[in-house]
Amino acid sequence: MQIVASPVYNLCPEKWNSIIPNNHKTFFFKILLILNFFANSTLISAYSFSTSYSMPLLQTLSSGPLKVAVIGSGNWGSVIGKIVASNAKTSYIFDENVRIWVYEELIEGKKLTEIFNQKHENVKYLPGVPLPENLTAHSSLKDTIRDANLLVFVIPHQFLKSTCETIKAFNFNFTNTKAISLVKGLYIDNNNNPKLSSELISEILGLDCSVLSGANVAKDVAKEEFSEATIGFDDKESADVWQQLFDKPYFKITGVPDISGVEVCGALKNVIALAAGFCDGMDMGSNTKAAIIRQGFEELRLFSTLFYNGTLEDTFFDSAGIADTITTCFGGRNLRCAAEFVKSKGTKSWSQIESEFLNGQKLQGTLTCYDLFKIITSKSLEQLFPLFTVTYKIAYEGMSSDELINEFKVKKLRRIKSYDDCTLCVLPAIFKDKKKENGINYPKCNS
Amino acid sequence: MQIVASPVYNLCPEKWNSIIPNNHKTFFFKILLILNFFANSTLISAYSFSTSYSMPLLQTLSSGPLKVAVIGSGNWGSVIGKIVASNAKTSYIFDENVRIWVYEELIEGKKLTEIFNQKHENVKYLPGVPLPENLTAHSSLKDTIRDANLLVFVIPHQFLKSTCETIKAFNFNFTNTKAISLVKGLYIDNNNNPKLSSELISEILGLDCSVLSGANVAKDVAKEEFSEATIGFDDKESADVWQQLFDKPYFKITGVPDISGVEVCGALKNVIALAAGFCDGMDMGSNTKAAIIRQGFEELRLFSTLFYNGTLEDTFFDSAGIADTITTCFGGRNLRCAAEFVKSKGTKSWSQIESEFLNGQKLQGTLTCYDLFKIITSKSLEQLFPLFTVTYKIAYEGMSSDELINEFKVKKLRRIKSYDDCTLCVLPAIFKDKKKENGINYPKCNS
Repeated sequence: MQIVASPVYNLCPEKWNSIIPNNHKTFFFKILLILNFFANSTLISAYSFSTSYSMPLLQTLSSGPLKVAVIGSGNWGSVIGKIVASNAKTSYIFDENVRIWVYEELIEGKKLTEIFNQKHENVKYLPGVPLPENLTAHSSLKDTIRDANLLVFVIPHQFLKSTCETIKAFNFNFTNTKAISLVKGLYIDNNNNPKLSSELISEILGLDCSVLSGANVAKDVAKEEFSEATIGFDDKESADVWQQLFDKPYFKITGVPDISGVEVCGALKNVIALAAGFCDGMDMGSNTKAAIIRQGFEELRLFSTLFYNGTLEDTFFDSAGIADTITTCFGGRNLRCAAEFVKSKGTKSWSQIESEFLNGQKLQGTLTCYDLFKIITSKSLEQLFPLFTVTYKIAYEGMSSDELINEFKVKKLRRIKSYDDCTLCVLPAIFKDKKKENGINYPKCNS
Repeated sequence: MQIVASPVYNLCPEKWNSIIPNNHKTFFFKILLILNFFANSTLISAYSFSTSYSMPLLQTLSSGPLKVAVIGSGNWGSVIGKIVASNAKTSYIFDENVRIWVYEELIEGKKLTEIFNQKHENVKYLPGVPLPENLTAHSSLKDTIRDANLLVFVIPHQFLKSTCETIKAFNFNFTNTKAISLVKGLYIDNNNNPKLSSELISEILGLDCSVLSGANVAKDVAKEEFSEATIGFDDKESADVWQQLFDKPYFKITGVPDISGVEVCGALKNVIALAAGFCDGMDMGSNTKAAIIRQGFEELRLFSTLFYNGTLEDTFFDSAGIADTITTCFGGRNLRCAAEFVKSKGTKSWSQIESEFLNGQKLQGTLTCYDLFKIITSKSLEQLFPLFTVTYKIAYEGMSSDELINEFKVKKLRRIKSYDDCTLCVLPAIFKDKKKENGINYPKCNS
């Protein structure tokens, strides 16, 4: 739904900077919030009214606008830096100066950070895309995040833990700091339980950590093609702030109170994409590929519900859910490499395919598939995750790709679901009147 | 999930016909049911055990095996005839002779029904696919359905009402008859409320009517490529019978107790495919197309929940839900014609495109879009269905296709969902123990 108005945003904050003197900013902000509350008295508006800043954020804001640090500057990190810096420039809530941590390297003898700050472009990882001038690159992680109120983690999965530990050693005071993770992937703890990137960040740094995930091919978001993303949050105030920071007309943000659901989607969709790629490699028709994706998504949903409390159906219908899975299963590196893996009929290893297709970068899907299988087998859950299991065996145990289909092409009948096994759709309260007006009491089983 | 065993099926019924004398069949059947009950005593098996025939069916079976009639013999009807006849031949439950109603026409001076019954092929609508010899074509609707216990409706949407009224006029006794509808599309009643094909059949003929829908491109199912379909049912016994009739290793059937949900998916996915086709016609990237499909699916879900009681989330995760929507949005006639409509920039009408691409056959998506918009506007629900509304305006009111994206590419923030707006995922009871063993109480909001 998008019948939603953020009153603060609509008032064109870019204009205030010139109008309002700095020391009046916080006072003005409070007045606006009060005004907004009264402005939103109609039913639809009340439904739309999402911005309820509680004291902690206002307290932080009393000392000035919120400072943002982006940790990571690869392809996606640079795009996110662009979005965040563009919003910070025009929003009263955020400090205009956004810092981004760049792993220092030399490009034709010159430091990447220097090129970045002179040309306002990440020539290595996002060439050709102009970045806002208020986004500055720093090679020191410590300098990047010093005093930051909002930490945006967007680094490769395998570096997250060590980066968090480095940050912890800085001994910064994080009382007024929140984090968000854009890191995709799954970790395993010592008991072979899944661990999510937000868990890792929360545990090591003691931060409230939201997550952002969605159907976002980086280069297309960089070109400002329309796309969407989902924020999974624990605390409503965090979601509101992150939405203000990330939302652009071409990058629409929704929020669901389901961190683990959003993260499980972001990690496991890559395993589904491997299976979909196997289908492509075998030249399967659309019925078959759709069935495999559906089975994968059902296992993803079961995984989230089984391992985490409070998984929401709404998460799966959001951008992080079906939309991202669709994008990943009809394009993207996991799909292409998996198709090549099958076509090569065992003559090419994953690392060979990675070096041919990805310049040696690692595939996320195969790593996640490996860890996922470890979790599944350690708990003897293979029966509940037949697609994930067979995908692992094809990817790692030399099983023929035909088994992907044979696993399901069986005589055994599937279970007919009873009403008690199923989840009833819930209408948000605001729609209840519409339902009373228009609901049809048919058929019997549905009454 | 497919950890499911139908005990009856597994016992290879094709062998019984030769072993068991006819008059002992019903007795044998009862004994088998009792044996099955005891055979399924382990936890997973108990979960799998779905076949619980209550008295009415057994009563009908006392008089002999169930007689099947397929009403309709187009592309999909012929494929369904093939499946049904193949299962009827080997199952003890069904009469071997399956009748299919063929609208009589002359092919090179010879009657289509005669060619059908001689060549065992529908040379007009499914050429090249051998059909079982126990599937016989009849030009008389009355002869086709006489004495039938199971009526399979698989005719074009626009002929359903008149066909039902013709059948009603036969004045047959339908006490022991059940129906299933494979008809896709939406009807409107006099109050501009949606009406589904199963409603129409139930109302006119007073029959219990289930539905079947799924990601099924007919020609690929005909080639026995692996696919899946969903039965929406009211009465569990019906679902069990229909599953026995339709399930093949290459055509796996699941069931959900949600007739209206399954039908709404089957109808509205074609409207989403129009919007997806508009994206293709504008050469939009995958982020954008995924966002449009997601928005469409969310509106589909809202439509079902708003207009019908008891809509289940499980329906949307089944073949009739996301799988069928994916297939339809990445292939198929609605997608292709909608892309052509946009590319022609208003120079081609829908009927011109239909004649070029479909030999003059009507598109389902445009018809459904038209009716859907009538329902939406008559109830002033445009705000709740922005994608359906803009899709209609592009298709019928000359609106520029750019508006499809502009509608969503806005500054207004979307609503952050609260926990109360969302639907919690429910684990079937059988998984509860697994959950206790493996559930992780993270994060806070999810506990």
